[in-house]
Amino acid sequence: MFKRILIANRGEIAVRIIRACKEMGIQSVAVYSDEDKDSMHVKLADLAYNVGPADAAMSYLNYDSLMQAALDTEADAVHPGYGFLSEDADFAERVTKAGMTWIGPHPETIRQVGDKDIARTAMIPSGIPMSKGSDPLIDEDDAVMKAVEVGYPVILKPVAGGGGKGMIVANNEDELKRILPIINIKTIKYYFEHYIERSRHIEVQIIADNYGTVLQLGERECSLQRRNQKLLEESPSIALTPSMRKRVGDLAIRAAKSVHYSNIGTVEFLLNLQNNDFYFMEINPRIQVEHAITEAVTGIDLVRTQIRIAAGEPLDIKQEDIHSSGHAIECRINAEDPENNFLPSPGLVNFFIEPGGPRVRVDSGICAGLSISPYYDSMIAKIIVHGNTRGDAIKIMQRALDEFTIEGIKTTIPLHKKILTNEYFRTGNIDTRFIKDHFSKYHYTKPTPETAREEEKEFVPAPEKPASKQADPAEWSQEKVDEDMRIAIRSGLYYM
Amino acid sequence: MFKRILIANRGEIAVRIIRACKEMGIQSVAVYSDEDKDSMHVKLADLAYNVGPADAAMSYLNYDSLMQAALDTEADAVHPGYGFLSEDADFAERVTKAGMTWIGPHPETIRQVGDKDIARTAMIPSGIPMSKGSDPLIDEDDAVMKAVEVGYPVILKPVAGGGGKGMIVANNEDELKRILPIINIKTIKYYFEHYIERSRHIEVQIIADNYGTVLQLGERECSLQRRNQKLLEESPSIALTPSMRKRVGDLAIRAAKSVHYSNIGTVEFLLNLQNNDFYFMEINPRIQVEHAITEAVTGIDLVRTQIRIAAGEPLDIKQEDIHSSGHAIECRINAEDPENNFLPSPGLVNFFIEPGGPRVRVDSGICAGLSISPYYDSMIAKIIVHGNTRGDAIKIMQRALDEFTIEGIKTTIPLHKKILTNEYFRTGNIDTRFIKDHFSKYHYTKPTPETAREEEKEFVPAPEKPASKQADPAEWSQEKVDEDMRIAIRSGLYYM
Repeated sequence: MFKRILIANRGEIAVRIIRACKEMGIQSVAVYSDEDKDSMHVKLADLAYNVGPADAAMSYLNYDSLMQAALDTEADAVHPGYGFLSEDADFAERVTKAGMTWIGPHPETIRQVGDKDIARTAMIPSGIPMSKGSDPLIDEDDAVMKAVEVGYPVILKPVAGGGGKGMIVANNEDELKRILPIINIKTIKYYFEHYIERSRHIEVQIIADNYGTVLQLGERECSLQRRNQKLLEESPSIALTPSMRKRVGDLAIRAAKSVHYSNIGTVEFLLNLQNNDFYFMEINPRIQVEHAITEAVTGIDLVRTQIRIAAGEPLDIKQEDIHSSGHAIECRINAEDPENNFLPSPGLVNFFIEPGGPRVRVDSGICAGLSISPYYDSMIAKIIVHGNTRGDAIKIMQRALDEFTIEGIKTTIPLHKKILTNEYFRTGNIDTRFIKDHFSKYHYTKPTPETAREEEKEFVPAPEKPASKQADPAEWSQEKVDEDMRIAIRSGLYYM
Repeated sequence: MFKRILIANRGEIAVRIIRACKEMGIQSVAVYSDEDKDSMHVKLADLAYNVGPADAAMSYLNYDSLMQAALDTEADAVHPGYGFLSEDADFAERVTKAGMTWIGPHPETIRQVGDKDIARTAMIPSGIPMSKGSDPLIDEDDAVMKAVEVGYPVILKPVAGGGGKGMIVANNEDELKRILPIINIKTIKYYFEHYIERSRHIEVQIIADNYGTVLQLGERECSLQRRNQKLLEESPSIALTPSMRKRVGDLAIRAAKSVHYSNIGTVEFLLNLQNNDFYFMEINPRIQVEHAITEAVTGIDLVRTQIRIAAGEPLDIKQEDIHSSGHAIECRINAEDPENNFLPSPGLVNFFIEPGGPRVRVDSGICAGLSISPYYDSMIAKIIVHGNTRGDAIKIMQRALDEFTIEGIKTTIPLHKKILTNEYFRTGNIDTRFIKDHFSKYHYTKPTPETAREEEKEFVPAPEKPASKQADPAEWSQEKVDEDMRIAIRSGLYYM
């Protein structure tokens, strides 16, 4: 087993990994930017190492600083968490070449699943069903032709994207032609998928050791998204019958085996509500924000499992040993103002009471007296509840949200409270358009001519380097999260 | 089901009950003394009612105030929590006579189990094994004679006592004669039990509905006590083989049935380590501090169960449906200074971080910015962890204790950290004398002549009213907790 793990991350996930290390008797090394010197992960880790200034590009994304930290502290493994460099095959490779263990899949696997074109191709021999897609688009004419082949509506996806960023739907050729001039398909590789209008986002947790054993820990229902960013997740999904559950679990194992997957990961599917078929979307080669709901229902600690697998331990359970019990829900608490277009709300947390008591777990990186930095992702805490049934879990989440007191900043707690009382949500009648359909004011706030112009002005073309390199910082940076909105504004399809 | 429950308590257990009410869709009424107007249970309840001044006798123990609160708020049930009036049959009777439901056993049952003489007599027909005991002592001569019959060492117990208060061991006639003049056996009924020197405190959680079904939820190991006050509990007990576990579970059910027990309760046993026999001690007719470890391993919510049973619902599970998984440990966090003879340490909590993350539950009644009152019990929080194994649970508790940050007051956290690294504890080689044997400085601090005289001066004879009336405030009041110490000081048996 490892002696010392460097955690190339911050916030709640760094705290989560430190906890696992402590419980396993492994020393933890926190890295931190100047902005983060007083933060929770620094307080809790055994060692802490400054890796640079506030700007993530110069600290949490800085290969050299991180490698120096790992070498100086004599870490024998690196845990990337999610976001930042967790899906960066080049960094993973650099870690392994320096003689340390990368706690995640092999760099080659990260590369393979990070390129949607390659990943989709890899799934074909195993017969994994996929939404009809195209090859990468060459130019506008090619795009218009391929869209017809794929069939409208189409969704434009960056080949190297991940986490729902930069995607936009075109319902017809007219809309497509308004989008194409903006997204610059010559610089960034895009492709089409046929867009499934009514679908649920169902993902399956995979654990796979270095010896070919691949197990699945059941599904998570992640349909509640705002502009492709997950808000609230639950496990199991009430949309699945036992036979559908088995089917999607088997598909996930086949998908993982197709790329010789090891360590833990998530296979994401769309469940088409027209025909109850699952369509492969992507594999996330890392721990996910919502991993804790799977931990709640299965009793299996995913971070410990990651570490053990990376250390070369074989899985010592079989598929039939894995049982799910009860129902778990997670609410992501972001420092954002849902009443003001989810504007990030950094600042000093001057009063803070976390919910507690039975069946409630809080994973957070904050405490009273700490400042939420404007530099990083706005997710500051997660509440995970585990009830006997879905209704029980909803009730527990409601009381936990009522208890959660954060003063000094705005959070998404009020929005979650509204979602939990929505009749469609309560009866489980949800799909990926739930927020758009039932909470439209929280989906796209109509811009005034001034704000539209401001947003327009701020529009920065996406970087030319492969998106996989920064796949996850994007998940957290407001700038990147809003890319789809900027495309929408510029193309005039803002309110579609 | 009830519409509105009045919670005749404060602190973490009031918060615990409010949580259950919220999850069940029942309104909660908090009662509070002037001292508690800003406390957590007041913040969290649906309604709050002032029941008097800081002195518990005039507020939390005040029948009239509490009844007025219940009537004014139109509560249809009263939950007493633990301590205060939870074992007060007269108060329970008053609640029921006012047409409200008492969330606890029938007042007659409380009366029966509250008198150790009656309770022991009730157990005889069912063949529940008991340590050899005496009838209540009449006078000194009678006591000396009865001690010989019972056999030294003997333990003097108040007939109406509970929770380990006012008990003292006499190893021989000389010691007994030094104790007897102090304890005033004419005012307070005392009796003897033969004292088992090496034993474990094993208790069994019982749930019993109003229709004769009695189930047991396994045992809790509560041997780690300081002067008969529990410090750290765990479930299951590693001292028990499966057959012993079955035996003590069956005994507990028989004991409960002997008194036609309903609602939830705990049957306490001593496990004699000489012969592995169990000896009945007492039945606690209320929720206990340590109930949460049973909730962790069984997945059964005891407070919800209490409420459902009181509302007349039959139990809908059978004994064979109850399974225990993993290992749970609870540490009681008291606002006391373990380095200074457990002197209560009230004051302002100016910084507070609760542990979080997987498998950790915190039940507390405090937050940053709140003052710990000197008027009430010093237990301010409980940490409950649930590991796969005992070793796992110990590791999780260690990391949880490391995370727990309470500034402004002294707490028992440092003592718990020491216990968890003790080799006897770690290997499970513990008994009720563990703290005395291995942490003697935390058991009795040798008084200086001055402090001894001070303690002597402060000695107040126990009240003449039946102890059952105040059985539980005693559990929490430093004044009563120290009664055994005062007896010990006065009798010169301080360091026995």
